[in-house]
Amino acid sequence: MKKVLVANRGEIAVRIIRACRELNLETVAVYSTADATALHIKLADQAVCIGPAPVLKSYLNQTAILTAAKLTHADAIHPGYGFLSENGEFARKCQQAGLTFIGPAADVIDLMGEKAAARKTMLAAGVPVIPGSQAEFTDAATGLAAAKKIGFPVMLKASAGGGGKGMRIIKNAADFSREFALAQNEAQNAFGNGQMYLEKYLAHPRHIEVQLLADQYGRVLAVGERDCTIQQHHQKVIEEAPAVCLLPQTRQQILQVTAQAAEKIHYVGAGTIEFLLADSEHFYFMEMNTRIQVEHPITELTSQIDLVKWQLKIAVGEHLPASSKPATGFALECRINAFSAGKITGLHLPGGYGIRVDTALYQGYLVPPNYDAMIAKIIAYGEDRLEVIQRMQAALDETVISGIQTNLDFLLQLLREPDFQTEKTDINWLDQLSLKN
Amino acid sequence: MKKVLVANRGEIAVRIIRACRELNLETVAVYSTADATALHIKLADQAVCIGPAPVLKSYLNQTAILTAAKLTHADAIHPGYGFLSENGEFARKCQQAGLTFIGPAADVIDLMGEKAAARKTMLAAGVPVIPGSQAEFTDAATGLAAAKKIGFPVMLKASAGGGGKGMRIIKNAADFSREFALAQNEAQNAFGNGQMYLEKYLAHPRHIEVQLLADQYGRVLAVGERDCTIQQHHQKVIEEAPAVCLLPQTRQQILQVTAQAAEKIHYVGAGTIEFLLADSEHFYFMEMNTRIQVEHPITELTSQIDLVKWQLKIAVGEHLPASSKPATGFALECRINAFSAGKITGLHLPGGYGIRVDTALYQGYLVPPNYDAMIAKIIAYGEDRLEVIQRMQAALDETVISGIQTNLDFLLQLLREPDFQTEKTDINWLDQLSLKN
Repeated sequence: MKKVLVANRGEIAVRIIRACRELNLETVAVYSTADATALHIKLADQAVCIGPAPVLKSYLNQTAILTAAKLTHADAIHPGYGFLSENGEFARKCQQAGLTFIGPAADVIDLMGEKAAARKTMLAAGVPVIPGSQAEFTDAATGLAAAKKIGFPVMLKASAGGGGKGMRIIKNAADFSREFALAQNEAQNAFGNGQMYLEKYLAHPRHIEVQLLADQYGRVLAVGERDCTIQQHHQKVIEEAPAVCLLPQTRQQILQVTAQAAEKIHYVGAGTIEFLLADSEHFYFMEMNTRIQVEHPITELTSQIDLVKWQLKIAVGEHLPASSKPATGFALECRINAFSAGKITGLHLPGGYGIRVDTALYQGYLVPPNYDAMIAKIIAYGEDRLEVIQRMQAALDETVISGIQTNLDFLLQLLREPDFQTEKTDINWLDQLSLKN
Repeated sequence: MKKVLVANRGEIAVRIIRACRELNLETVAVYSTADATALHIKLADQAVCIGPAPVLKSYLNQTAILTAAKLTHADAIHPGYGFLSENGEFARKCQQAGLTFIGPAADVIDLMGEKAAARKTMLAAGVPVIPGSQAEFTDAATGLAAAKKIGFPVMLKASAGGGGKGMRIIKNAADFSREFALAQNEAQNAFGNGQMYLEKYLAHPRHIEVQLLADQYGRVLAVGERDCTIQQHHQKVIEEAPAVCLLPQTRQQILQVTAQAAEKIHYVGAGTIEFLLADSEHFYFMEMNTRIQVEHPITELTSQIDLVKWQLKIAVGEHLPASSKPATGFALECRINAFSAGKITGLHLPGGYGIRVDTALYQGYLVPPNYDAMIAKIIAYGEDRLEVIQRMQAALDETVISGIQTNLDFLLQLLREPDFQTEKTDINWLDQLSLKN
């Protein structure tokens, strides 16, 4: 492996290019016409335009990306997150074209992408799965019968789902058919797939996930867990590592169960299993992300393991160490989102002790209106949660991003909330808080 | 302590202000007219102009700084490094004005500032001192007699010295009087003091220093050692932590001797004892810096101890922990120097995993011609020296500082030198390398 094509944009493309550089791997950036001045192009050794702004024509354009890889003699493709990162078909095409797809096998991606099949597999691997429908359905009547069996309230979800699309809490039988129609319609529009399933609705769940690394020889490390409970409209806003809410034995259990499941499915690369934590002892499988995640830096800081570099090292056949050190310290990530497109007229990002910033912003950069709102990740690390919250407040406080509108003030307000500081939160907390504002 | 006046500028002022913010301490910046647009002013809660560009009229102007503290009702002064940081008289005036000087007692500053007295004190505290003249002299004849006793080659130094000024290697008796006159003249001009002393000249010494923290109750932590062997014209260029050249028992010994010496002199605050390492087992006291140092971040990364925050915490009477964890990983710092003044027309600083940048630069900033050349510190952290050198290369490689001339290319060349990579270096290595270029 000498040259890696990075099939992504923004901060994650920059993150991957940096890891490649450290390993003396050449890099190829790909970009849409809307991204012609993007930072990842400037940092890569080569760059290829793969189409116009709409993602289907560029960052999701498999043929264009494979052609770019061929033209530039790349021998591997790193998909980042989003876009083609969890597309089994694309992973298969890479393999067929003689390219290393940096991720697990195409079949594993497919299996974990099918939510119902993933749940069945996890159940068989000894992972606790949320009580609910093991089966998918496409009609309201079958769904209603299943909901009655589980007991209301239930959570209706799209099989091909993600990002909260096609998701509904249904409180009683009377609402079922109306909510089902809306959710299925949303799922159909978002994913071209109207398969739905149900889950027992948990009252105050927290979102806990476990980062894993697995090499080609069957060794799996459950590197550490994250708490991503602070979400707005099902999008993570603030992530923490470790999850301080866990009892030590629950932490041990959730890490062990994750490693066990990854071994069972012969997982290779970096991946994450997401769980809902019902209380300090009970957790249930939600889904598996067969890719690097946005919030991977907080685990890197607490584990001192460079996850993206390990993705590359695993792809070339390196062995993982026998074990990872237990997490030390505490890390917090805030996702900086833009509410508007436009030119960055002034930029001051925080730095110094305990601060890491992952971004593709630069002064003078024109933030295009076409892509994800997340423009930067500010990550703070330190001894404990209290110190790190103070460090993050100081860091956000000094951050200046002029020319566009961002959520910086919102994040600062959020960090000051007593409920956040004392962890009296659940995955619905922030949505309810927003209503109060 | 509620409000801290930061009697410094540039990256160290920014570093201190950030630590204050995290501790909810208000901050007062002071600045010369040449620094009216500097970053430390923007980050502080208040700012006071203390005079024109020449340092004697502003950053060394004790009256102006004490007046600024009084006017803004600051109750403490953090001197940073350089300027008034090792001025016992200033520390004393702070105390007399009812202000907390963040550093050791004025008498300790004075004692360590007098090089000959410092050596005597260290010798008495059980610290190995380089064979040489314990006494100072102001005339060539006395010096020559002492030099003959020690044996040539000898190193002639200025008692009030620092930064290589008034320093000469003298190879034989014939050269003595000429070299003495030049060195004394230099010392007189730089420090207004012609007191000189001699030391045995070591052939291939390395510069090793130990960071310490001491609280008000006599507890001392020798936090970790640094290797600052890569110097140009007696100025540090690249610093490393830990010092991988040390044998484990030598490391243990140098840390222990440092703690012991600090206890003996009733040291309070952050300080550093600098040593010359003659070989893997023998080290000799050089000097003590009674302040925070430029290269403190590499120790912060390997020890996970926030040294500047601890300076503040010690000043308000907090207790140090009983021990510090052993250093983990490896950290490297490159000092980015400017060769010209001017406007920063383009700026891209590295970031992401294992990278820390301490700087007061921003795009559009006008670097004034009046001050120290150092404009940024790029610090890389990782598992081991090899990984971190690669990370630093990638980081420097992506750094863009347009509008002024810097040493970025020089540093990149230096990192690629096989002798640097394999540690076949001593404190004279870089000066000799420059001659070859």
